Amino acid sequence: MFELLKTDSESKARLGRLTTPHGIVQTPVFMPVGTQASVKALDPRELRETGTQIILGNTYHLNIRPGIEIIRQAGGLHRFMNWDGPILTDSGGFQVFSLSKIRKIKPHGVEFRSHLDGSLLFLGPREAMEIQRALGSDIAMVFDDCPPHTSTARELHAAVERTIRWAGECRQQPRGVGQVVFGIVQGGANAALRESCAKALVALNFDGYAIGGVSVGEPEHEMMKAVEITEPFLPSNQPRYAMGLGTPAQMIELIARGIDMFDCVLPTRVARNGTAFTRKGTIIIKSAVYKADFSPIEQGCDCFACRHFTKAYLRHLLNVEEILALRMLSVHNTHMFLKVMEDTRNAIGSGNFGEFRREFIANYRPSRRVLLARAAVAER
Amino acid sequence: MFELLKTDSESKARLGRLTTPHGIVQTPVFMPVGTQASVKALDPRELRETGTQIILGNTYHLNIRPGIEIIRQAGGLHRFMNWDGPILTDSGGFQVFSLSKIRKIKPHGVEFRSHLDGSLLFLGPREAMEIQRALGSDIAMVFDDCPPHTSTARELHAAVERTIRWAGECRQQPRGVGQVVFGIVQGGANAALRESCAKALVALNFDGYAIGGVSVGEPEHEMMKAVEITEPFLPSNQPRYAMGLGTPAQMIELIARGIDMFDCVLPTRVARNGTAFTRKGTIIIKSAVYKADFSPIEQGCDCFACRHFTKAYLRHLLNVEEILALRMLSVHNTHMFLKVMEDTRNAIGSGNFGEFRREFIANYRPSRRVLLARAAVAER
Repeated sequence: MFELLKTDSESKARLGRLTTPHGIVQTPVFMPVGTQASVKALDPRELRETGTQIILGNTYHLNIRPGIEIIRQAGGLHRFMNWDGPILTDSGGFQVFSLSKIRKIKPHGVEFRSHLDGSLLFLGPREAMEIQRALGSDIAMVFDDCPPHTSTARELHAAVERTIRWAGECRQQPRGVGQVVFGIVQGGANAALRESCAKALVALNFDGYAIGGVSVGEPEHEMMKAVEITEPFLPSNQPRYAMGLGTPAQMIELIARGIDMFDCVLPTRVARNGTAFTRKGTIIIKSAVYKADFSPIEQGCDCFACRHFTKAYLRHLLNVEEILALRMLSVHNTHMFLKVMEDTRNAIGSGNFGEFRREFIANYRPSRRVLLARAAVAER
Repeated sequence: MFELLKTDSESKARLGRLTTPHGIVQTPVFMPVGTQASVKALDPRELRETGTQIILGNTYHLNIRPGIEIIRQAGGLHRFMNWDGPILTDSGGFQVFSLSKIRKIKPHGVEFRSHLDGSLLFLGPREAMEIQRALGSDIAMVFDDCPPHTSTARELHAAVERTIRWAGECRQQPRGVGQVVFGIVQGGANAALRESCAKALVALNFDGYAIGGVSVGEPEHEMMKAVEITEPFLPSNQPRYAMGLGTPAQMIELIARGIDMFDCVLPTRVARNGTAFTRKGTIIIKSAVYKADFSPIEQGCDCFACRHFTKAYLRHLLNVEEILALRMLSVHNTHMFLKVMEDTRNAIGSGNFGEFRREFIANYRPSRRVLLARAAVAER
């Protein structure tokens, strides 16, 4: 399923190739998030044009609306949403623990109230795998216990214990044709817990491994640490996925730490607030400085938005609340994330990753506002 | 500028060709409305794909935001919004009389408060023509006095007198290169007033004539009557435009009464409420009957939405408030209006308009809800 093509000489950056029933994915890869069977504001043609290789779907949300029976009748998620490329589905574990205020953890899953209408629902390893089988995703994720970054040592320990046990139950469930399953390592910033969780999951022999419990509101250095203390225990011949991350600069730093796959709502979420990503950091298109700026969002960018529209026009559209503004910023930001990944792959391939990384990080100025937007997790 | 190619044998339906600096327009034509320099939810590529020949822009709205100086610096409205096809701009008369609660009619225009921030503005024949010259529209409209359909005979009379006088002033203003100007006939449902207004405007020798004061909340029979009592006084060798109209069935009936051009916010406005136009009338996509309906909005429709998505999927997207739903319904509805016009042109061309009209009207079931949406005029 995964082929490791090359490893960087001066970092842990890797070039790889994931083969799925719906096509090949070049790694490192960024996966746009289609929580509710739509990558917000984009259509499948635009996804292709931005360079999207694989998208994310979500068990928790799709199970509530439209309900799994509808998607089953449609012939699976690919056909329901008319995306014929690979899809990875999250298991719903993260959402059960972050969206449901009222929940009761039971031995084989979680009883919780729908965030939508308060109805009583249950999701556990068996249910999550069954739903993902019905969705027909190419990559399914195990159902995990994802505790907040403020958890006590005792809570973290219990979450890891439960995550491992549930992973074992997920491992026993039937899968869709060609569907592979990734384990999710928990353990917060605790090195011993991360190690034991990773080892236990690897013993279960999954097709890939995710690092969970990141992007849950923790500071950046803690997120980097969580990855650094986990990565050494993941098999080098299988893909590694950092869940819910990150900014372009963070992704490059995580690639340098051996990560292959990313997903994040940032590009489409901040687009809807009028923020655009560039190689120098984010810019606020509504800002008065762009009032009569008839240049594209970013010089040299060949996305649909930059080929057709100016900042002055997009600023106007944002001011008058036209949908086209949200669309075009979503197109640009998604394209930007995917282009950074493409450039990263080329840099690793040609042996220039170190230089590429230094230059990118030197040019990219992180924005506190955008980092905070990442922490707003409800949409994932 | 206008070539009358054919007139129907059993009705007043006409086939024509409008030549503008930005291309040729086949008539009868429906013009999607881009009030604020964007046809809501659509991009220029989608406009082309739906069969759009010419779009509308709006003097009143664009003058307030982004302001005419920005559009002038951009090199005109075409370049500002990146639409290289023909544009017709409304003069702002309709908006001054419908959107501004506080206004003072003066000899050479109207002093009014911006509906946005209450600032004091002035728009008259000179200003409206100057703004439209800066916008660089292919077709400019005169600045008229558009009274509500509840006006007294005295008010109507004054509005017609003013409309004629202001039309004369507009006629004297300089124009953009290749820009043509249409007069607007007012007079409500009063035959004598419509006749005298039409004759006075024709004496001023405009390039085309619009029937205004329709689509202002009046019942349909009154709207039809306003067109019937005006049309005989309009030159047959020039284009006739019914402003702010209408549903597909209404457009066909108006074409039978000699109208060549239409504009209406209906297709994109009702799309954003989840309503789709079909040859049988409108359908409410959110309806539970479409929950597991995996057929397109309309069988046989070749728009992007119908080629890619099912009603069940679009219903889901509406339920979870995804932007893609509004986009795809806007694509479908706009395409539907334009396809009806294309079919109408073909029917006139092949001498089958009478049969086409009877069949269309027999199949199309008007919706009261949609007719009321047309009366909500703020967006135009």
